[in-house]
Amino acid sequence: MHFHIMTLFPEMVLDGLHTSIIGRAEEKGCISIEAVNIRDYTLDKHKKVDDYTYGGGAGMLMQAQPVYDCWKALDEKIKERKSSEQSEDGRTRVVYVTPQGEVFNQSKAEELSKEKDLIFLCGHYEGIDERVLEEIVTDYISIGDYVLTGGELPAMVMIDAISRLVPGVLNNGESAQTESHSNGLLEYPQYSRPEVWHEKRVPEVLLSGHHANIEKWRLEQSLERTKERRPEMYEAYIKEHPPKPQKRR
Amino acid sequence: MHFHIMTLFPEMVLDGLHTSIIGRAEEKGCISIEAVNIRDYTLDKHKKVDDYTYGGGAGMLMQAQPVYDCWKALDEKIKERKSSEQSEDGRTRVVYVTPQGEVFNQSKAEELSKEKDLIFLCGHYEGIDERVLEEIVTDYISIGDYVLTGGELPAMVMIDAISRLVPGVLNNGESAQTESHSNGLLEYPQYSRPEVWHEKRVPEVLLSGHHANIEKWRLEQSLERTKERRPEMYEAYIKEHPPKPQKRR
Repeated sequence: MHFHIMTLFPEMVLDGLHTSIIGRAEEKGCISIEAVNIRDYTLDKHKKVDDYTYGGGAGMLMQAQPVYDCWKALDEKIKERKSSEQSEDGRTRVVYVTPQGEVFNQSKAEELSKEKDLIFLCGHYEGIDERVLEEIVTDYISIGDYVLTGGELPAMVMIDAISRLVPGVLNNGESAQTESHSNGLLEYPQYSRPEVWHEKRVPEVLLSGHHANIEKWRLEQSLERTKERRPEMYEAYIKEHPPKPQKRR
Repeated sequence: MHFHIMTLFPEMVLDGLHTSIIGRAEEKGCISIEAVNIRDYTLDKHKKVDDYTYGGGAGMLMQAQPVYDCWKALDEKIKERKSSEQSEDGRTRVVYVTPQGEVFNQSKAEELSKEKDLIFLCGHYEGIDERVLEEIVTDYISIGDYVLTGGELPAMVMIDAISRLVPGVLNNGESAQTESHSNGLLEYPQYSRPEVWHEKRVPEVLLSGHHANIEKWRLEQSLERTKERRPEMYEAYIKEHPPKPQKRR
């Protein structure tokens, strides 16, 4: 899978993503990450990419021209590669990272992980001229209801979440991790060595070796924690998994 | 405001945050960001910080000892500084970045921006031994319902959102930005020069100079967009701002 990031801060994105699992996946060749600088495409002689907003308002807006030309160059390069690989020539999706989008979640990550190429457009300043968004953007996505300086961190977050779902990126041990979160409950508490730390013992059941009891304990803990911390998630789970009726004697 | 980040990847966090507004805020002295490596505190002779999970399960768990000792050193340093500044000695909040937490949003960012010091604990591997979390963590926070490799990116996202609310970090023009999102609606479309781009004209009203009409148009656009993309947000807004009843003639 190939990630392409349109940004004013290519180093920030690349430095942040080359760590840990994502960096290893790049080395293994499962994914590639490229960042292109939108500023390289401006026709302004002072390399400016922003200007005032029509109708007034604080802050500067990114202009249509550099964003469009950057996208055009990227999109053509991707088309050429696809045609040399004789792979199908579907339109490459362009994700605009914006608080004005639908909220990213695990099922969106799964959907996007099926793409062969994915372009991320990172805004800065007050936003981007609407006309270029209308022409190039296919998906408006937000990572949550909070205001950030730019689209770079959210793009990194999405690329991390999506990469983990690309086959070969995680080894077998790690991939089980994902599933433990996708059952619709928060995870149970976990313990590692030593058995006693600061006078706190690991719960007895986890040392018992009794697999069924361990599973039962973990499910109870997950349920309790979800009910306490994320009541709306708990309600949704209970609706789909109604408690079994007690048998009458 | 002082941010302290406990992590296995200090460079990743620092590189990612030194860009743009956050970097400028550090230079201005409004905020400071420090990252400490949890691995520096392990007593294991091979510098190991993780081990298997009791009761079985995929992946490794971060052990209590290095996390606790790292926190202890940090917390004492903060206490000393506070006492030399003769500032009040409240407990420094420790945010554990975890999908098992309450979901971060703008009002959480505002709450946390009032702290003088804030410690972020970034997990990796399958998680962290529950016992040390019980002893040191004051806040369990998630940035959204998706699975990530580690706590570093979410910590960076939160620090970005929180920093923007610290007085002096944004200049006046920029700070207005925040407010446009905190009215409970998505933002209206925006346009910059030129007036015509790819045969698309900037909407006439924005060129009119008629301030009240511009405001009206923008509100309509915000309402329409919010209704379409975030219906639940629209419902909440309408409940709080019921449309004015038509006057009878």
